[in-house]
Amino acid sequence: MKILGVDPGTWHTGAGVLEARGNRYQLLHFEVINLPKHAALPDRLLQIYRTLGEMIRIYQPSVMALESVFYCKDIRATVKIGEARAAAMLAASERGIPVVEYPPARVKQAVTGNGKATKEQVQHMMQRLLQLKELPPSDGADALAVALCHLHCGSVKKNELLDGLHKRPSANLKKKLLAARAAS
Amino acid sequence: MKILGVDPGTWHTGAGVLEARGNRYQLLHFEVINLPKHAALPDRLLQIYRTLGEMIRIYQPSVMALESVFYCKDIRATVKIGEARAAAMLAASERGIPVVEYPPARVKQAVTGNGKATKEQVQHMMQRLLQLKELPPSDGADALAVALCHLHCGSVKKNELLDGLHKRPSANLKKKLLAARAAS
Repeated sequence: MKILGVDPGTWHTGAGVLEARGNRYQLLHFEVINLPKHAALPDRLLQIYRTLGEMIRIYQPSVMALESVFYCKDIRATVKIGEARAAAMLAASERGIPVVEYPPARVKQAVTGNGKATKEQVQHMMQRLLQLKELPPSDGADALAVALCHLHCGSVKKNELLDGLHKRPSANLKKKLLAARAAS
Repeated sequence: MKILGVDPGTWHTGAGVLEARGNRYQLLHFEVINLPKHAALPDRLLQIYRTLGEMIRIYQPSVMALESVFYCKDIRATVKIGEARAAAMLAASERGIPVVEYPPARVKQAVTGNGKATKEQVQHMMQRLLQLKELPPSDGADALAVALCHLHCGSVKKNELLDGLHKRPSANLKKKLLAARAAS
């Protein structure tokens, strides 16, 4: 099973594809889509939509995982994230890929063991778990984290369940996460 | 010149196409896209995107006009409008149609002469100005109003200007609007 994790933003959108085979998982692709500062919003949304659409075409993920909306104090920033989320969701639904959402605290809990972990802690855990040579940028790390959260939590709504989707984390994946947490 | 006016919402999205020929304008198409209540958000966004895309394909408007974001107290509602706006903007940008935005108060001012007009006043003015047999529903009236505002105001950003776009309202259109306002 392949999962496309996305961290949407109208200036930087992180995206990563993880593949799970039995108890193992592997990073297939990872990038941060940097949107040009001079570009109008519709053009930036189009770039998010097209880049994610191309990733879906190439990697054929069975699901897109996103963080659910976090209503922060800055309403303008929240609306902008909503607009970028919509572009990502459209890229998935246009190609018949289901979208699953996890609250930010659950994503952090799943990958660091702490629902209030800092961005840096998430970055370090993703580097360790996916054996990356370099620390991933924050937007990218969040995209990988939500994909991993989907593998780990796996409790999605009934109509979003796919064939072969693990409903519970495998014992090995749990051990791996616990070992990485203990070592960090 | 044809203008596609859109009033985006994740449950009801209004859309209307006006054609301006010299000093006259005509309603070519008008509908409210009602999104099914049981459908997930990505599927509703897809329906908005596809329906507007189909309208663009059929009517070939030269511009899409939208109300700019109104940051109301209900942040969840504001975010949802942002998501629907993104689907509309993508339908336009995917097809190379520029998007222009007008603040809600400016739209009301343009069509009723009062920036604080009620929804009902906008509905009545749109019925009168476009000589509709029935009162248009509120979502539809707002979509027509923003299209008419674009015809009336016509002051868009430089990079959004199109060949043949009227920079100023024609004298006849101004007269027509003033007469309709006086009669209402």
